[in-house]
Formats: sequence, structure tokens, C-alpha cells
Amino acid sequence: MDYNSILRKIKVELSAQKYQGEVASYIPELLSVSPDKFGMHLCCLHSGTYGFGDHEEQFSIQSISKVFGLTFAMSLMGDRLFQRVDVEPSGDAFNSLTLLEYENGIPRNPFINSGALLVSDVLTSYLENPKEDFLKFIHEITGDDTIQINKAVFESEKTHGDRNMALLHLMKSFGNIKNDVDRVLELYIYQCSITMSCQQLAKAFAVFANKGVTLDGKKILSPVHTKRVNAIMQTCGFYDEAGEFSFRVGLPGKSGVGGGIVAVHPGQYAVSVWSPPLNPKGNSELGMYALERLTSLTESSIF
Amino acid sequence: MDYNSILRKIKVELSAQKYQGEVASYIPELLSVSPDKFGMHLCCLHSGTYGFGDHEEQFSIQSISKVFGLTFAMSLMGDRLFQRVDVEPSGDAFNSLTLLEYENGIPRNPFINSGALLVSDVLTSYLENPKEDFLKFIHEITGDDTIQINKAVFESEKTHGDRNMALLHLMKSFGNIKNDVDRVLELYIYQCSITMSCQQLAKAFAVFANKGVTLDGKKILSPVHTKRVNAIMQTCGFYDEAGEFSFRVGLPGKSGVGGGIVAVHPGQYAVSVWSPPLNPKGNSELGMYALERLTSLTESSIF
Amino acid sequence: MDYNSILRKIKVELSAQKYQGEVASYIPELLSVSPDKFGMHLCCLHSGTYGFGDHEEQFSIQSISKVFGLTFAMSLMGDRLFQRVDVEPSGDAFNSLTLLEYENGIPRNPFINSGALLVSDVLTSYLENPKEDFLKFIHEITGDDTIQINKAVFESEKTHGDRNMALLHLMKSFGNIKNDVDRVLELYIYQCSITMSCQQLAKAFAVFANKGVTLDGKKILSPVHTKRVNAIMQTCGFYDEAGEFSFRVGLPGKSGVGGGIVAVHPGQYAVSVWSPPLNPKGNSELGMYALERLTSLTESSIF
Amino acid sequence: MDYNSILRKIKVELSAQKYQGEVASYIPELLSVSPDKFGMHLCCLHSGTYGFGDHEEQFSIQSISKVFGLTFAMSLMGDRLFQRVDVEPSGDAFNSLTLLEYENGIPRNPFINSGALLVSDVLTSYLENPKEDFLKFIHEITGDDTIQINKAVFESEKTHGDRNMALLHLMKSFGNIKNDVDRVLELYIYQCSITMSCQQLAKAFAVFANKGVTLDGKKILSPVHTKRVNAIMQTCGFYDEAGEFSFRVGLPGKSGVGGGIVAVHPGQYAVSVWSPPLNPKGNSELGMYALERLTSLTESSIF
Repeated sequence: MDYNSILRKIKVELSAQKYQGEVASYIPELLSVSPDKFGMHLCCLHSGTYGFGDHEEQFSIQSISKVFGLTFAMSLMGDRLFQRVDVEPSGDAFNSLTLLEYENGIPRNPFINSGALLVSDVLTSYLENPKEDFLKFIHEITGDDTIQINKAVFESEKTHGDRNMALLHLMKSFGNIKNDVDRVLELYIYQCSITMSCQQLAKAFAVFANKGVTLDGKKILSPVHTKRVNAIMQTCGFYDEAGEFSFRVGLPGKSGVGGGIVAVHPGQYAVSVWSPPLNPKGNSELGMYALERLTSLTESSIF
Repeated sequence: MDYNSILRKIKVELSAQKYQGEVASYIPELLSVSPDKFGMHLCCLHSGTYGFGDHEEQFSIQSISKVFGLTFAMSLMGDRLFQRVDVEPSGDAFNSLTLLEYENGIPRNPFINSGALLVSDVLTSYLENPKEDFLKFIHEITGDDTIQINKAVFESEKTHGDRNMALLHLMKSFGNIKNDVDRVLELYIYQCSITMSCQQLAKAFAVFANKGVTLDGKKILSPVHTKRVNAIMQTCGFYDEAGEFSFRVGLPGKSGVGGGIVAVHPGQYAVSVWSPPLNPKGNSELGMYALERLTSLTESSIF
Repeated sequence: MDYNSILRKIKVELSAQKYQGEVASYIPELLSVSPDKFGMHLCCLHSGTYGFGDHEEQFSIQSISKVFGLTFAMSLMGDRLFQRVDVEPSGDAFNSLTLLEYENGIPRNPFINSGALLVSDVLTSYLENPKEDFLKFIHEITGDDTIQINKAVFESEKTHGDRNMALLHLMKSFGNIKNDVDRVLELYIYQCSITMSCQQLAKAFAVFANKGVTLDGKKILSPVHTKRVNAIMQTCGFYDEAGEFSFRVGLPGKSGVGGGIVAVHPGQYAVSVWSPPLNPKGNSELGMYALERLTSLTESSIF
Repeated sequence: MDYNSILRKIKVELSAQKYQGEVASYIPELLSVSPDKFGMHLCCLHSGTYGFGDHEEQFSIQSISKVFGLTFAMSLMGDRLFQRVDVEPSGDAFNSLTLLEYENGIPRNPFINSGALLVSDVLTSYLENPKEDFLKFIHEITGDDTIQINKAVFESEKTHGDRNMALLHLMKSFGNIKNDVDRVLELYIYQCSITMSCQQLAKAFAVFANKGVTLDGKKILSPVHTKRVNAIMQTCGFYDEAGEFSFRVGLPGKSGVGGGIVAVHPGQYAVSVWSPPLNPKGNSELGMYALERLTSLTESSIF
């Protein structure tokens, strides 16, 4: 497959695409990012890496960190995690309390906010220094110990925590949060505040294409658990647009409000894109387009 | 891959498995089926077919017919179909009116009842003799013109149509049903009443593994539309257990209340199982188990 | 109490009031009514009757008929009716299927559409000629056998029955509708199509102020059942504005989409108003205002 | 009216009644109360007071305090309060977050938990020493400055605050809570922890029967605001049993999980009952019975 020319083609097409979406605006650090940023990076297991545009520039990974949180928690407690969080698509907006209330404090899946907060609670229970240990895990899965959080994002996010606090207290009222809610929220926000480039994200997600092993040969997760992370990304990775993404792109993946999307083709590659303007459902508009073109041009959907 | 020995192994394991579920009981024709029936049939694109147990005995395919309905409708009107039905998982019980009401009569996806009824409305608009034409389509996709409906099932289902009539009238109140509701319901029930064996189902679904072309070389659907059917099966094929099925089995698939499940490994095979006892979410209990074992033993999940 | 001068004062105030609402438009017969119509009629138990404006002109009583339906059904089967319909406010839009689905086909109260349809089912079971018998009941409660339905409204409403058919089929799927749904819907629409004037309505509702006895001394309902009808009007008479009406007017009452409202002061009077423009919640805008002024000026709220 | 003999009759009937409900058990202070306690006290505006049983024994008033909170807040800011809390029945369980989420953080009414928490937020904004000032208000409305909170209840309730914290954070995320959530919750719990006897409650609620003036002649609330409090009690005072209470008892009222109920007959009397066993909807089972008997025997429903 001539990935070089395929990515070139996508780059040309993108330059002709107009976006209509808007950059996330709830904190100044996201709002101030230029809407014209675009990066794409493809990391193949067996045939090299390819990238263009702003693919080496770091941005706020936001909800993409939920995949790392889930992976870390599964590496610590395995399938027992799923006694406390389900794996079904939510069919509802990403931060809804409604389902959580009807379902007795068991989040629908680990990628809606309640589920990711629950994962943070698990990590808080298992880890001695949750924030530092989480960052070490990121260093391990990327093989890059320069990755850090953006402190300004971290501080800003703290001032927008009321809805997540509501979710935490609601789950706690059902006995499904074990730690102090302030500590859990702090870890959650810390995770969201990590900054990475498309290149770093694609390399990290190559682990999910590679049965749980990093490209440097370090084992992060068992093959069966890796398969499960991919399955959850497939059905739950895009808020209430998971079906649309499966339909158009046909790969497991995860998006973040910072405009990043990462997708995985098991056995083949991981690919990441970054473009800040979001569509009405909160996913990167041009990012979705670029990934759809990639799987069309390479005929590489898992379906 | 030695599929013969793998299926033998599954057969042995199954004989040791107890089921706890119950056979569907809302019509006598389903209730009277022996809970001990079990059949499994694997239809590989390139390496033969394999089956055991009651894999040649016909049973009521019920909701599996929704995949055929969707496929037929997509072959008639392409992506325009998705202006009238969405492709998102429902996150709710299979016959819920709630979401339909909140979402202005646009069904969440073509595999919940409202969505399948909408597909029947589309077929009623496009076809001269909807029931006969649908049966012809089944004959074409299976290459087998002996397949028929079970008339007793057809008559019994007619007496249980109130919830579906509620869905039809609700969609009609939003202008999203174009034909007489009685005619639409009749076609819908007709589709559900078709009887097929595991062998026939696996052969039919091989089309979805084979980019839309039957094993006899007949083109049913374009490759891109075939990919979409698979994506919808992945995210929406199992009512509110779609995530669980992705998680455990890792293949696109569709179940029916008669105890059948069919799953597809694009590029590789289609596989069907039949075991009438259903788990609490309405999917064949032993069928789920057998498919999970198949993808584990063959390491052939798409994830 | 000098009701003459109080009603004169209200009339003057009303002439200075602008309305912002719009006349119901889903059938031409309602849309064609002049928005400037206004009538008000007060029928005291012990001190005469008072009216002004278009209070003798007949209009479509629409949902006000639900009170007559409930009263007739209670006179036939007493409190056993409440095994099939609850008496709680719905907290939701007037035609929502959601609650009905969650609550197993038991309508929240007799004044939401599902509840009124259930009452029509009861009447269909009990009456030999449901439509004729219902009209006779209206003649009896008003002491006026000239009252008829508007046939044009009756025919138009029939073409807008899909949502009500959805409700009927849903309740039937739970076993809570006993008759043919088409017959039940026909009776329901028949009831809604009755035309009455403010004067006729106030006289009819005087029964609820008078412990169930007409001003002519005819016993319609027992005192305890009359009290119950009033209680249900108080908590459920105004769709999702029942609280607002209690809060501002402070009387049990019932509104209709034709712009009519009737209210009852037990032991004192019944009062009706008619003004077609509706507020966003579907209740007559000037009607609400006039009633609020009446209870303020007479200090006659039940609270 | 011979209230003495009527209350004697009710007392006799009650001694023959079995209760099936259970005493509230979420905190030890409520669980330890004898289920056999029963008190009833009637405070007429013009014809004396009557009581029997444990009517002078203090108990935890719990949610009955929401009426005092609402009254105090209305006395401070009038109808502007209703820009931040609605007056519609909720049609849902008393602590549901669902409606609050759909309705953008505006509670349905001041008597569901979210609404009462919002009222506590208002009081926190207006009062210098919210807890002390609230207690003073209670002393004023009862004319009894011995009333205190139960400190053990206060401390126990604090350990059950997660669901209320979830409500507070959710409202805060919509900008509808202005103060520190911990302070608001503390005031809310303080209010709930007040202990009063039936006698004290009936005297306090006589204010609502008496156009806002205490029996000692002190003006607490304007007549129009008093009418509004009564209207809200009528439609929203009994969680999702408001309709049932209107239907059976026919008076505005408010219940508490401690087994107390107070009801008001405007212009006539206030009456309170106390019996700890609760029906499935959380209202005192025998208390409901006693009040139904009272309005039947005295024929004094407002309907």
C-alpha cells in the first residue's frame, strides 16, 4: 500500500474542505487554539510511519485519555472492572445523569464521563501516587517520558467540575465510588489535561493494533483485554455518534474535545488526526472526514 | 485453520453447558420448540463449510430478517434510506417508544423494531408485491428457492401486533411512515415468519463477508453498502446487549428471538448458531457462548 | 358580592390586554376561528348568572369533554375506574407515550390523552350506543338537548388520529384497552367535537360546585365522586401547567385547545371563559388572565 | 362541628387499623422510633384545638420543613423566587435528577429535594446567620422559642448527603446555585433536623389557613403569597402521591419521612398527624388514613 501518496491525496482534499464547526470554548486554553490546525499521523505495525501538517504539535488530548485510563485499570484489575462499569453504548449525550440514575450508579461504559470517573476511582484505589503513576503509564505506553500535562488546562478544568461532581456524588450515593470525590475528580482532570501530538498518540495506540504490545516490545495488556478495549472503542468511542463513526469510518476509535481522534485497525495500524473545529456532536469535523477517506482509499475498514 | 476440530471442540464443550434461559413464549409456535435444539454452521469464503447438530433444521429467523430487510432497502434506495432511520445504538430496550418520541419519529437504527418497521414501509413503497418480492430476494441471497414462511407463525404474530402498531402510528404522526400501517405491519410480520436453517443463514450472510456478492457470484449489494450493514450489525445487532456481544465475540452479527444468531467475519466467513433458550436480554444464551468460543479458539475477532 | 361590577372590570381590563399566543392550527375548523373572540360566564349556585362578550356563542370544547367523560365513567363504575387509570399529575407533555410505557399501560390520569382514551374504552364497554348515549349525558348535565357535535371538526380530527392510535395500541399491548381501537378512537373524537357556549359550560360545571347535582336538581354524581373529579381537575387539568394554574387562579378547572377554560369553586360557582389564542403550553392565554383576575377580585380561591 | 367526638371516632378507628409500611431506616435516629407512635392535632382558627395520642411528643419534621423554607424565602424575595424554581408537580420520584437535567437546572417545584436545596441557597444568600435565622423564623411562626434541631439527626443526615450533593452540583453547573454547595447542604440538613410536635406543627400551619397571619396576630406572609404556598402544597406536597392525596383527602398538605403530615383547610383549620410507618411512596400510611377520615367525617375538603 502506498501510504505516502494516499496521505498526500487526503492532505490535498482537506485543503479544499471548509469546516463549519466551532472550537471548544468552555475553557480559554481550548478556545485560543487556531481552528486551522490540522495534523495526521499513521503508524503501521509493519510498514513505517507517515504524517503531515501539524502532526508533531502537542494538543490537549482530553477524552482520548479515557482509553489510557481504561487500559491502565484493566491491567490492574482485569475483567473485575466490569462489575462496576458496563460496556454498552449509552444512546444518550455524553454527560447524562439520567441513565446513571435509572441504572443504579453503574455507568453505561467507560467512555462516558461517569464511566471514566469510575475508572479514575479505581486507579485512585490501586495507585500509591495516582497522578504520577498515571503519567508514568503514559510514558511507558508511548516510550516517551517527555509527555506532561498542560497546567493551565488543568487549572481551568477544575473550575468546570460541577457536572462531574454531580456524577461522582450520584455514583457515591449508590456505593459505586470508593474514594474521596475531590481526589477522584482531580485525577480525572489530570488525565484530560495531558498534551500529546498526533505522532505520539498514533504510536501509543499502535499497542491496541498490536495485541497489547508496544512497538518497542513492551507488554501493556493481554491480547484478550486489548480486543476488549477495541470493542468498547468501536461501540462507545464517539458519544452519541458511535454508530455514525462505525458506519462511515469502520474502525474502533476515540475522540476528544480538543479536536483529536485516534483510530485502530487491529493487526495493521493506528492513526490519529487533529483538527479543533467540532461538529454538533462534539467530534472533530475534519478529523472524521480524513479518517473516512483513509479507510475508503485503503479499503481497510474492519468491516 | 482446522475448523473441523475447532467445531468438534465447541460441540463437546456445549454438551457440558447448562442453559438457564427460557424459550420465547409469546406465541405457541416458538414455545413448542425443544430447548435442547442446537445447531452451528460455519461458511468460509475460501475454505469450505462446517456444521454440526441441528444445523440443517429450519427455525423461525425472526429479527435476523431485519438484516435482509435493510439489505434489500439499501439495494433499492442506497444511502437516502438513512434520512429516515439513524444508525446509532439505542441504549434502550428493543421496542421502546421513548426514544422514538424524543427523536421525532426517526428510529435510532434499522434493527430496533421501529427501524425495521420503517424499512418495511420503504419496501412497501418500492415493491409491487412486497411479500412475494421479499421472498424472492431471500431466494436470491441464499440461492435456494425452497425457503418459505411458517404460516402458523405468521398468523400468531398477527395477534401480537399492538406494540408494533403503536410504533407505526407514532412514526406516522411524525410523517415518517408513508403507507397504510396495516400493510406495513403485514410485510414486517411476513419477514419475521421466514424459516431457515443454520446452513441457509450462514450461506446468506456469507454475502456480508464477501463484499456484497453471493458465493455463487451474484452481486447483491455494493462493497461500501455491505461495509455499512456490517457496521450497523456491530453497533446495533443485539438490542441492549450490542456492547456485550462486541466485547465477548468481537464480530458483527444479528440475533433473533427464535434462538438464532448469525455473525460475520468480513473477508473470512459467516457463522450461524441456533439454540432456543434466551438470556434475560433476549439473545440465545448458548449461541452467544458458542460464538465466543469460536472467535477465541480461532483468534478471529475483528478486534 | 357585586359580580356584575367585577365582571365589568375584568371586561375593561381584557380590552386593554394584548395576546401573544396563537389559535390552534392543526385542523382548519379551529384555525378559522377569530382570535378576537372572548366570552366569560359565571354561574353562581345561590346568586344568579353573569356573562359578557361572546358567552353565548358555541365553540369546540375539545379536552373539556374529558371531564364529562370521566364523570360519566365514574357514574357507571365508581372507584373501580381507578384500577385502570391513575390520578397523579403527569409532569410531562399532554400526549407523551414515555410515561405510559414506563408505567405498563396505566395512564397517569384521566385528563392526559391516554387517560381520556382509556375512559372512552370504558364507556364503549358499558354503553349500548356510546356516541348517542354520551350526547344524552351531555344533554342531561346541561339540561339542554340542543347541544350537538360539529361534524366538520369530527371529520377533521379523524385525519389526525395517529398519535392517539399509538397510545391506544400501546395500552392494548398491556391489556388495558378492551375494545376495538377504532371504535374507541371514534368515541373519543366524538366527545372532543362537541360544541358548547360559555353559558352552557358554566351551567354544566355548576354540577361540580354543587356536590354532583344539577341546578335543576338532577343527581349526576355522588358528593364523594364529585369531590374526586374536582381534585383531579386541580392537579391534572392543565397539562404541564397544572401547578401554574393552581398557583395563579387557585381553582380546579379544565382547559381545551379550542380556547375554552372552565373552573369550579366548590359550594360557590362555576365559571367559563373562551378566547382562542393559546399560550405555549396550550391553554387560553386571556382565559387564564381573566380567571386569575376573577379569583383575585373576589378573593375566592379555594386556597 | 363537634370536633371532639370526630377525633375520638378517628382514634377508635385507628386503633383497629393495621399498618403494613415500615419506618424510615436510612439513619438510626429514624429507625429507632417506635412504629406504634400516633398523634393527631387539630388547630381551628375559630373553634379551639383538639388532639390525642402522642400529639405533644416531638419528632423529626424532615421534609415538612420545606414549607417553612419556602415561606421564609417568599417573605424575603417574593415572586422573584419563581424565576429559579418552578411550581409544577414533578410526576417522578422525589429525588430524581432526570427532570432537573432536562430542564436546565430549574427544579420542578420547591418541595422536591432539588427545589428545597435551591430554597436553601436563596436563604444562604439572604441571611447573615442562615441556621440561626432559620430557627428564629420557626420560633416566630410557632410562637415557641423552645424548638430546636435534633443534633444526632443532623449529624447522621450529613453522612447521607451524596444524592443531594449531586443535585446541588448539577444545579450549580447550570448556574442556578450561587453559594458554596457545602454551606447550602448544611442549611438544608439543619432545616430537616428540626423536631416539633403535632401540636406545634398544627399551630405553625394555622398561618397558612389564616392568610399568612399567626394565631397570635403576627404577620408572616401576605395573603396572596399564602395562597400560593397552599396551591404548591396541593399540587406538589406528596412526592409522586400528590394526586392521590388530593383525591382522598382533598386538602393542601405536606408530609415528611419522619411520619408527619400537616394539612390546611384555608379559612378553617390546620391539622397534623404523626405515625412513623410509611407507605411505598414514602408518606405516613396511618396519617393519610386519619386525614381522609377527618375530611370525610367533617365534609370539609376544599373540593
